[in-house]
Amino acid sequence: MTDLRHATAECTVGEYLAARLEQLGTRHIFGLPGDFNLALIDEMLRAGAVEWVGSTNELNAAYAADGYARIRRGLGVVLTTFGVGELSAVNGVAGSYAESVPVLHVVGMPSRSVDGQLLHHTLADGDFTRFATVAEQVTARVVVLGGERAAEDIDSALEQAVSESRPVYLGVPSDVAVSRVPSRRLARRLRTGVSDADQLASFRSRFRSLLDDAGAEVAVLAGAGVHRGGAEAAMRRIAARSGVSVALQSTAKTLIRPGTRGLLGVYAGAHTDRPETRTRIDEAPLLVLAGVAMTDFLTGFFTHGFSENDAIELGMQGVRVGSVVFDGVTMSDALDVIDAELTARETVEGEGDVESGASGGSGESFSCSSPAGRDRERHATASSESAVPRTDAEGDAPLDHAALWPRLEGWIRPRTTVIAEAGTAFYGAVGMDLPDGCEFLGQPIWSSIGYTIPALLGSLEAAPGREHVLIIGDGSAQLTVQELGTILHRGHAPTIFLLDNDGYTVERLIRSPRAVYQDVHHWDWAALPSALGAPGTRTASVRTIAELERALADADGTAATFIHVVLPRMDAPELLTRIAAGVR
Amino acid sequence: MTDLRHATAECTVGEYLAARLEQLGTRHIFGLPGDFNLALIDEMLRAGAVEWVGSTNELNAAYAADGYARIRRGLGVVLTTFGVGELSAVNGVAGSYAESVPVLHVVGMPSRSVDGQLLHHTLADGDFTRFATVAEQVTARVVVLGGERAAEDIDSALEQAVSESRPVYLGVPSDVAVSRVPSRRLARRLRTGVSDADQLASFRSRFRSLLDDAGAEVAVLAGAGVHRGGAEAAMRRIAARSGVSVALQSTAKTLIRPGTRGLLGVYAGAHTDRPETRTRIDEAPLLVLAGVAMTDFLTGFFTHGFSENDAIELGMQGVRVGSVVFDGVTMSDALDVIDAELTARETVEGEGDVESGASGGSGESFSCSSPAGRDRERHATASSESAVPRTDAEGDAPLDHAALWPRLEGWIRPRTTVIAEAGTAFYGAVGMDLPDGCEFLGQPIWSSIGYTIPALLGSLEAAPGREHVLIIGDGSAQLTVQELGTILHRGHAPTIFLLDNDGYTVERLIRSPRAVYQDVHHWDWAALPSALGAPGTRTASVRTIAELERALADADGTAATFIHVVLPRMDAPELLTRIAAGVR
Repeated sequence: MTDLRHATAECTVGEYLAARLEQLGTRHIFGLPGDFNLALIDEMLRAGAVEWVGSTNELNAAYAADGYARIRRGLGVVLTTFGVGELSAVNGVAGSYAESVPVLHVVGMPSRSVDGQLLHHTLADGDFTRFATVAEQVTARVVVLGGERAAEDIDSALEQAVSESRPVYLGVPSDVAVSRVPSRRLARRLRTGVSDADQLASFRSRFRSLLDDAGAEVAVLAGAGVHRGGAEAAMRRIAARSGVSVALQSTAKTLIRPGTRGLLGVYAGAHTDRPETRTRIDEAPLLVLAGVAMTDFLTGFFTHGFSENDAIELGMQGVRVGSVVFDGVTMSDALDVIDAELTARETVEGEGDVESGASGGSGESFSCSSPAGRDRERHATASSESAVPRTDAEGDAPLDHAALWPRLEGWIRPRTTVIAEAGTAFYGAVGMDLPDGCEFLGQPIWSSIGYTIPALLGSLEAAPGREHVLIIGDGSAQLTVQELGTILHRGHAPTIFLLDNDGYTVERLIRSPRAVYQDVHHWDWAALPSALGAPGTRTASVRTIAELERALADADGTAATFIHVVLPRMDAPELLTRIAAGVR
Repeated sequence: MTDLRHATAECTVGEYLAARLEQLGTRHIFGLPGDFNLALIDEMLRAGAVEWVGSTNELNAAYAADGYARIRRGLGVVLTTFGVGELSAVNGVAGSYAESVPVLHVVGMPSRSVDGQLLHHTLADGDFTRFATVAEQVTARVVVLGGERAAEDIDSALEQAVSESRPVYLGVPSDVAVSRVPSRRLARRLRTGVSDADQLASFRSRFRSLLDDAGAEVAVLAGAGVHRGGAEAAMRRIAARSGVSVALQSTAKTLIRPGTRGLLGVYAGAHTDRPETRTRIDEAPLLVLAGVAMTDFLTGFFTHGFSENDAIELGMQGVRVGSVVFDGVTMSDALDVIDAELTARETVEGEGDVESGASGGSGESFSCSSPAGRDRERHATASSESAVPRTDAEGDAPLDHAALWPRLEGWIRPRTTVIAEAGTAFYGAVGMDLPDGCEFLGQPIWSSIGYTIPALLGSLEAAPGREHVLIIGDGSAQLTVQELGTILHRGHAPTIFLLDNDGYTVERLIRSPRAVYQDVHHWDWAALPSALGAPGTRTASVRTIAELERALADADGTAATFIHVVLPRMDAPELLTRIAAGVR
């Protein structure tokens, strides 16, 4: 289809943008129509290159585009109208910036012929630039298309979003959307992920000498940037080399297959579970930071024991070694260089030392497993042969977090995408061992409550063949609940655990637990899917261990399932209790 | 209570802010808790000066604060946390700016001691100023409190928001929230709404000579600014004077009691209903523009026939006559001056010429009525003696807009606040004559769909004793539907008409009516109140005229009522059809 379009001499700007998205593997657009973007949407959908996923509001659309980009390892797109639409999406776009997610925010703007008029959807002051100035604060770049060079500007916007793994704003006036550009330009490949060869060579020789100094002992702390940079396979190969230890930030907890030779588990400064993990990272002779973020939650409130200045830091578009920056070196190429140097070292030191299981992973998108996950078959009928033994009396006991998380861990099937909302859900889920091929999605930097329901939609559109599990608290769910309707109407079959702890438990742990502002109103959660027009959704409300186990046995991943889990108001996963103390 | 607090030597910054709000008549705060605002909320709620109204998300809280401010004729407050919270509210705050509504956006920020750290809820780049820069684009002013002069800065922020009738941003670091300021300053009255005496005198003499030139014939076009400026009583007196004609923008359609001598009805350029209204305004020898906005929808797409430069323009804080600006003259004082000059003229020309009904309105907050509204008693049992006669056969006919609006008009009771969402709802509702004491609330400038459900919450909190009616389309309702739960849980009893036309009808009228992006998913609307935890809500689904009439008969304003009104997909009020043609 793309070739046919190339053959015609011209296409509209909207068609061009859609064709470029298709080339990047982006097949879905999340957004809402509005009078300033209708022409643009019509052009973008004309050729069938991309599919429209109508969202219920713009913030949700931005969250969905973010979730889509993370799971797709590509660009997400949110499309809104000028003013009212784009401003509603700002928080979602800012989250993509904070967490380094490539999202294109396309905004349908008024035709240039009416610039300065006192239109609706403006601030009624004739200034049409204010919203772009807002966008400048939360994106890597703001591009507003004029008539000239529209195709070039689109290409450069897309290249920057993908290369930097950051959101970019693309304003398209409605007259520009329907204007024509030469379509032959589509034959030119977009330039993304290409390293500067000289800089890469310089980094290679620098790394080699550092490796010599360190006695060939390397520790790596890997973060979400490895996923964003498409460098998972290289990272997995490295983790299997001799002399290498790899710890993970929670944002990359499914990156390395458990059982891999050098895997240390999750590192978070003083909040690290295993003392050995902490020591090996903090005291490493040569430390590589691969796509990490050194934020409060991810460093155990800045209790990491290493100095970033002494480490090799791999970013999306450059490597820093001390005060030296190797500009234009991509994450993927940097890790390939490190892998190659480690391989050379192994070849010198002795053949056959690499684990067979690791070298086959090149280019694949397989993911982690816990030892438990590999050793044990998981069945939909897990309750009868539960991994967590209990007496009959325990079955009638009210659920609490201590009972919940091991049972969820035992129930989750291989190749599931597990999405966990900020708060109790995230800090419970992050402690679970996940079986083979799972992905884990959360937002521990931006931590915008409500993110995960729309992100679930995005993830489902990005990888509809995978099983999806969402775990979310009642307070958070109320912020963005309407997107649940979109998920169910589009025929997806996620399993959703709504943790009902009667308010903002995470805030209660920080301060004033009995304050009126910590309450949220009680909803009839189990009735909600039907009210949103999806009466076929399986629903259950569970208050005891036995009820949970029955619900888990029914939740076989074949139909949309909504499980309302009633929990004590002040109960929380142990990790969250510790972190709340840090925030206090 | 206020005096007691003054008596103590010091209070915290949070307590001070709350006390100032109470002095301004603002007793409610809309918002969500977050870890950076918990200390601030605790301080603000400590003395009981203000009440917390927890919202389901920050955009909704901003909309609610806007609705509160409009109905209260005072300041609305939205309170959010740093980053994630405040950015979600930006669209709502921008709407307050576009429509000149005084809203204080209070943001709980991280303690100054952690400034620059890579905290969650930041962009993870150490730059804490970006969100304030966002706020600068959509507010009159951004104030971030430091330790010094916090009380003075609060006062000046409040004074500016009220005087300009615009949103102001107030950032409060959590350490500042609990720091102490002298409470004696609370005895100083906030300076709002005070004119510059010299400028006022100059305007008076200028107006007098213009009146002489015009032969004592004055036409006034009044907009929402008259409500915001607290100048309703003066405007009503003026409208009753001889030689005065007054037309209204739709944003002020309930400003003047119908039947008042000089009232011309609603003016909107070529979209004006009555030709005489248009002529009287367009050809006025002396035209006063009182608090108007000259935006597309309000001017019939700029088809107004007068020149703003030739008119006397009254703003919130200044009057413009041609190129001369009388700075610091308030709307209220300017209208008092005009009223006084007209009175003097009448006294010269002859006593006893002022209608008795008008002069008693000084300072009162009474509102409009239509002649029909005054002449006809309205009953809850309106269906049996409907104002709109029909045959029995018609009763089974499917509802359409032509059948809907006259019946709603005949059912609405005096002193009802009628809130109409952008789209079909607004353009149907704006054509209704409303009975005595009604208010009409919409957002025709910013036109952000979803605004009215949270605005209804704000209006209900501002004036809980009034009957409230909301009319909203299904597409719009999905954006902000969760706030319906807050409304119902707080025990309010609005009547809500959900117009289900199967998507974005207003956009369909503009372009591509059959496009996939114009669809919204079908919800089971009548089941929604119960799912949101309010099973006591009266609900009905109506598809025929007879069903609507039965539902109206039951909707007596004593209990929360949700009426799902099924309408044809492409049917719309006639005015909207014309306006959509203008947008096209």
